[in-house]
Amino acid sequence: MFDPTAPDSVGLVKPALMHFDEPLELECRRVLPSYDLMYETYGTLNAAHSNAVLICHALSGHHHAAGYHSPEDKRPGWWDNCIGPGKPIDTNRFFVVALNNLGGCHGSTGPGTVNPETGQPWGPDFPMVTVKDWVTSQARLADRLGIQRWAAVIGGSLGGMQALQWAIDYPDRIGHAAVIASAPKLSAQNIAFNEVARQSILTDPNFHGGRYYLHDTYPRQGLILARMVGHITYLSDDAMRAKFGRDLQSGRFHFGFDVEFQVESYLRHQGETFSRNFDANTYLLMTKALDYFDPARNFDNSLETALSHATCQFLVISFTSDWRFSPERSEEIVNALVAVDRDVSYAEVDTDKGHDAFLLDIPEYTRLFGAYMRRVADELENA
Amino acid sequence: MFDPTAPDSVGLVKPALMHFDEPLELECRRVLPSYDLMYETYGTLNAAHSNAVLICHALSGHHHAAGYHSPEDKRPGWWDNCIGPGKPIDTNRFFVVALNNLGGCHGSTGPGTVNPETGQPWGPDFPMVTVKDWVTSQARLADRLGIQRWAAVIGGSLGGMQALQWAIDYPDRIGHAAVIASAPKLSAQNIAFNEVARQSILTDPNFHGGRYYLHDTYPRQGLILARMVGHITYLSDDAMRAKFGRDLQSGRFHFGFDVEFQVESYLRHQGETFSRNFDANTYLLMTKALDYFDPARNFDNSLETALSHATCQFLVISFTSDWRFSPERSEEIVNALVAVDRDVSYAEVDTDKGHDAFLLDIPEYTRLFGAYMRRVADELENA
Repeated sequence: MFDPTAPDSVGLVKPALMHFDEPLELECRRVLPSYDLMYETYGTLNAAHSNAVLICHALSGHHHAAGYHSPEDKRPGWWDNCIGPGKPIDTNRFFVVALNNLGGCHGSTGPGTVNPETGQPWGPDFPMVTVKDWVTSQARLADRLGIQRWAAVIGGSLGGMQALQWAIDYPDRIGHAAVIASAPKLSAQNIAFNEVARQSILTDPNFHGGRYYLHDTYPRQGLILARMVGHITYLSDDAMRAKFGRDLQSGRFHFGFDVEFQVESYLRHQGETFSRNFDANTYLLMTKALDYFDPARNFDNSLETALSHATCQFLVISFTSDWRFSPERSEEIVNALVAVDRDVSYAEVDTDKGHDAFLLDIPEYTRLFGAYMRRVADELENA
Repeated sequence: MFDPTAPDSVGLVKPALMHFDEPLELECRRVLPSYDLMYETYGTLNAAHSNAVLICHALSGHHHAAGYHSPEDKRPGWWDNCIGPGKPIDTNRFFVVALNNLGGCHGSTGPGTVNPETGQPWGPDFPMVTVKDWVTSQARLADRLGIQRWAAVIGGSLGGMQALQWAIDYPDRIGHAAVIASAPKLSAQNIAFNEVARQSILTDPNFHGGRYYLHDTYPRQGLILARMVGHITYLSDDAMRAKFGRDLQSGRFHFGFDVEFQVESYLRHQGETFSRNFDANTYLLMTKALDYFDPARNFDNSLETALSHATCQFLVISFTSDWRFSPERSEEIVNALVAVDRDVSYAEVDTDKGHDAFLLDIPEYTRLFGAYMRRVADELENA
């Protein structure tokens, strides 16, 4: 099924690390004296340096968005179905940059990397980073890569928030913003789910105040619970019904606390796999970045005023069964853009896959996303 | 605001304990050799013993449904707004029985009471109890109280499931079933949320395999997390927005893991209060009773066949913003009842209060519930 030699795969790819010595002042008023960003690129930067697109990742994503690190990899990068030759983000036409955000746990500077001042992992001392901070750091990465202006900044969920922030903060450096399955800010319910996930981690006895690295352990149970509750919000009720219904794990009731229903087994498995592959401090930071995101806040709480600073064109996509960031949340963005006379294409894709749909190969989604990106590439080539 | 001497209050009430020596065979095939049920009654049983109604409680409920145990009580019973003189369940006309279900933690035999065989608290050895088992035990309580037939069995959420089970298991002993904010069985998503709550408790280091009583502790954090995630499902997104929005606890961001948003503070407070007042093993049992409930299961998975055994009249009420048990879930019950030609009144009450609405004084709800119950009382008096 997954094949690095397939004609529509970017094939074997190699991450790279970019070191930054310029201090980065963060929204929280703290300063990162230096930092690294791990990134990957796919495709070729054209002579005019005009065909670059930036992929922004969501809560648990990273720089490895497409292709394979080795022929033995069981799975490609997390957005491989959208990135590659002939795919919606067509690497025959675009130079694609994907990075691991600051605070991440996949190679970029974050809580698990060493704080040069102490020689110990940052842990809980790593500063709170926001979507705005990420965009600033991404702009510096663009500078280094010789990209003055992105043809497009693209992201789903938390990634879509970064695309929005790019449009507001760097209007001259972005041609298109693709904001998929996202929202202009979290609702109280969104924050509440994040808070449950955080409390799961923070109260795990193996959290050790965030210094678990020094204790050779990690808050496994906290991460499992955080992921379980998160995962419920990524799937729709209908998708869960279709996938599991009330099917029993063994065909009959056992009347005990072992797994009875398949959905329990699935959730435990998802949680356990995740807990082995993700850093708890990073999870905490990512949920906080979500909570804090609210670009209207700096503009008298007017999303319209915030977006009036944008000059790029927008693609906004939502999914009917997404109850984490429902279509209404995307429509808030679209309505604000229309109100300030910005160019926006909006599609609500009919699917039962819930929030996770933005990561999946859903024909209507793939088709319209591909059509939009073809137009972006055509514009560049005709410019 | 709360006043035991108010004319529409049942005033000061006293719980009573009924001991049962007859063994109770449970659905899980285990047998409880003897047990106690804690209950309260309000109003007066008429000479014909025909005016009794049974109140079935939901996940965290108990026998104290109305009135006050002492003049100093800060709050009355959990359904005081529905039970009392002139209220929907009018104690001037009905003899109201409310009990703490088996497995509970408010006086009835449960994991926290002593297992006579060991002289220690039952803890994890307490057998799994189901909605069907509760109904069987409630029927025995009815026998003891001289109630051959309930004028009505009434419950919200898990309580409504008991009313449904009564209608199926004891058609001759129930005149009306009021099934409020309930469902004919849990969805995969409902089970998933329960599983997160259970794992929170089961993996708390203070759970001690359910024998925390012997360690002079309890799984406080697990209970807090379980209640936090549960609480999110009891409120609607709109209710949370109306109640908290994105209001900050202190007016500005602190960029840390202390409370930033009011909704975080609220959830933590709800969780902490609950953890002090509820037994973890009981919480586990209640969530399993919810998961296992599926009356159609014994009838070739046909809800219609299951309900064809019922002869009583039904009142089914749902709430528009309830996403735990949405109106569609109530309509499954209503449609099955209509298909087998049973008498059913159905109302979908428009409210933004979510699942919790069944506990609240919502004028449309109170009015139509009261109207239905007045008809029940009128029938009795005209019989």
